[in-house]
Amino acid sequence: MSEPTAAPQAFRAIDVIRKKRDGVELSRSEIEGLVNAYTNGDIPDYQVSAWLMAVVLKGMTRPETAALTDAMLRSGEVLDLSSLPAKKVDKHSTGGVGDKTSLVLAPLVAAAGVAVPMISGRGLGHTGGTLDKLEAIPGFNVNLPVAEFRRVLEVCGCAMIGQTAEIAPADRKLYALRDVTGTVESPYLICASIMSKKLAEGIDALVLDVKTGSGAFMKSEKDAVFLAELMVETGERMGKQVVALITDMDQPLGKMIGNALEVVECVEVLRGGGPEDLRELCLELAGWMLHLGGVARTVAEGKQQSTQLISSGQAVEKFRQMVQLQGGDPRIIDDAKRLPQAQHTLQIASAKAGYIASMQCEQIGTACVILGGGRERKEDSVDPAVGIVLHKKVGDQVVVGEPLATIYYNAETRAVRARQLIEASCEISDAAPAAKRPLIHRVIGRSGETN
Amino acid sequence: MSEPTAAPQAFRAIDVIRKKRDGVELSRSEIEGLVNAYTNGDIPDYQVSAWLMAVVLKGMTRPETAALTDAMLRSGEVLDLSSLPAKKVDKHSTGGVGDKTSLVLAPLVAAAGVAVPMISGRGLGHTGGTLDKLEAIPGFNVNLPVAEFRRVLEVCGCAMIGQTAEIAPADRKLYALRDVTGTVESPYLICASIMSKKLAEGIDALVLDVKTGSGAFMKSEKDAVFLAELMVETGERMGKQVVALITDMDQPLGKMIGNALEVVECVEVLRGGGPEDLRELCLELAGWMLHLGGVARTVAEGKQQSTQLISSGQAVEKFRQMVQLQGGDPRIIDDAKRLPQAQHTLQIASAKAGYIASMQCEQIGTACVILGGGRERKEDSVDPAVGIVLHKKVGDQVVVGEPLATIYYNAETRAVRARQLIEASCEISDAAPAAKRPLIHRVIGRSGETN
Repeated sequence: MSEPTAAPQAFRAIDVIRKKRDGVELSRSEIEGLVNAYTNGDIPDYQVSAWLMAVVLKGMTRPETAALTDAMLRSGEVLDLSSLPAKKVDKHSTGGVGDKTSLVLAPLVAAAGVAVPMISGRGLGHTGGTLDKLEAIPGFNVNLPVAEFRRVLEVCGCAMIGQTAEIAPADRKLYALRDVTGTVESPYLICASIMSKKLAEGIDALVLDVKTGSGAFMKSEKDAVFLAELMVETGERMGKQVVALITDMDQPLGKMIGNALEVVECVEVLRGGGPEDLRELCLELAGWMLHLGGVARTVAEGKQQSTQLISSGQAVEKFRQMVQLQGGDPRIIDDAKRLPQAQHTLQIASAKAGYIASMQCEQIGTACVILGGGRERKEDSVDPAVGIVLHKKVGDQVVVGEPLATIYYNAETRAVRARQLIEASCEISDAAPAAKRPLIHRVIGRSGETN
Repeated sequence: MSEPTAAPQAFRAIDVIRKKRDGVELSRSEIEGLVNAYTNGDIPDYQVSAWLMAVVLKGMTRPETAALTDAMLRSGEVLDLSSLPAKKVDKHSTGGVGDKTSLVLAPLVAAAGVAVPMISGRGLGHTGGTLDKLEAIPGFNVNLPVAEFRRVLEVCGCAMIGQTAEIAPADRKLYALRDVTGTVESPYLICASIMSKKLAEGIDALVLDVKTGSGAFMKSEKDAVFLAELMVETGERMGKQVVALITDMDQPLGKMIGNALEVVECVEVLRGGGPEDLRELCLELAGWMLHLGGVARTVAEGKQQSTQLISSGQAVEKFRQMVQLQGGDPRIIDDAKRLPQAQHTLQIASAKAGYIASMQCEQIGTACVILGGGRERKEDSVDPAVGIVLHKKVGDQVVVGEPLATIYYNAETRAVRARQLIEASCEISDAAPAAKRPLIHRVIGRSGETN
């Protein structure tokens, strides 16, 4: 006689915590059980925070990471954009200083016929956020309801909004808990948080821009590559095309830092100008997006198409259309003075002759936060007008008295502190730096593909 | 001009969590800050559970463990027994099956002139608890107020109660959280929990009985030794004399398991009888307690004195006095029938001839819990009458049909399940076991002392 079959065991958080603590791989249903129970309020914060700390210290396997991402994704609404004929491709950056490519990429890629349904975040700490930059445009509404988001996307091919309450509610709850329990810094949890939100957009493919260097969250290239590989594999396990570019954030990207200033620089790039590094990175990312979006056979072809869309004016006109559809004032494109203007400027002159050997990129980002251009805490509001314009970048020669940077400010005391930080962040050496750090360190995923 | 001195930073739990997560040693004030803030309700459970998990996985240094023990100890009242002229010595066991030495030791050691202020716990899981055994004695009150505890101690030299609300409240709060967050199993947290409560008794010295084997929490001798060394060093850092005996729990101690049955077996030992292993362990522990209590120059001398106190009847008379002072019926000593009696008994006969090769000790403890003699959850009540009497122990020869054990029960269905477990737990082999496990594996602490 066999034993009677046991009734299916109810989900017990303590068992899942203990397994993770002991380094045992969790099953998909255990991870789902935990995420669902937490989202529904059926298990308390204190059990989940113990589990999160066990994940930080014991890590996760690839199947566990994919299961967590999937459970978080399915905790809320997943957009169904299948009615749009175009392929849907998005880009996500892990964040940096002067990192403004989204504002260029969404219209540029949409102009090529690939749909870009972009849901972005706000700046936190020393990094900026796409939503804050968009809101520097008078009238621009990043809080569109899903139906309106879909309409803009159908009309114009791109739309840019903030996270809605319906998307990945598990991530919102988990992130708030991680923030106060020392459990933010785990590549597995970072991966699940990013990928669950991005895949909820209903996209076919995703290009990841994983930053490395002094201004990135992942300071070392090793950590950046680890996170990139994790995100690429997690996305692929979930049936999406994903590629990650490891790109440099050892100095700010472009020359302008601050919300309205960054809009200005993006318009420059969309018009065929702008600083070399920003233009190059935008073309590279656009090349991948066009390739994954099926409108270019190779990345090189995608870059070429993108260059043409810029020189023909189609890219900047797409930007104008999107700004208008989302309630923004499109006149800022032709007249930058219509963007919020700082009351004062302050020039920082070099006290020394030589070459810019390095820039402490995080400090420059922090200087912008001090000016009021970013937020230390989630509740802070930002001043769109303030920021920094760099006149020199790493490798540039400088003579005594030559301007290094200009500070755009509204409060004298803040400018003084920001100036100190910027001055301290620039190292000037007698000789030119031997080797320049590459802008694009590596490409992860889809190996063997022609670039 | 120097910067103005910063105001002392308020305690920030998140910093302490991050440090422990990253394997950085915490300072005494950081640990104190965490324990005090938690005890006062100033930081939430979810931060403390993340910290506890980091401790489980990253461990603690000896100074951290001592600081945690000290902070938990000082979260409540520390008894001041300095008015008692005798030295105060206690014993603590990490718990086992049939582990009943406390009921022998308190009166035996008190009879030798060493004060034993014993604060004990209840059984949980497969192990028994001293309070449950004492409460099998009709009328015995384990909930004396501190003043009454002190009075009994002054009159009789020993007193046995449960933990009061005033003693180590931090431990009560932390233990409740550990219980539901998978953070019980850390030697550092176990050490701090045990030592903070024991040192709050105002004792001069402590003898630890750290169990190892299939019925112990620390199954491996290595883990038992690690915990023992940690507790000895922590006690010594706090100015106490501490010694730990690593003792065997690969089979139950003595022959009786169950609350009233264990009282019967203790009285047997106090009268000079009882099973060999229980008597031997009681004498060894008493020898150490008398030695640390300053009434015996060596442990051997302490054992000798203890033997004499038993044969002279002084030990059992001290037990009688304590029972009476704490409201219990002392007639149980001469008439075991006055203890709660089970309604039924069931004998388990051996189906096989040979030698008892091993006993799954935890299973036997669980069988007693199933009978109602222990608790699965803290809220459960216990049946004092039920239990198991073993007729054979490891190494004993057995013929077919010979009784292995007798079950004392009140509910038929429970007896059936207990019987299955007991039968499954005894392994009978053809040959006698080659080597017998020693009862006392090792002594930790005060090395070089004559035994």
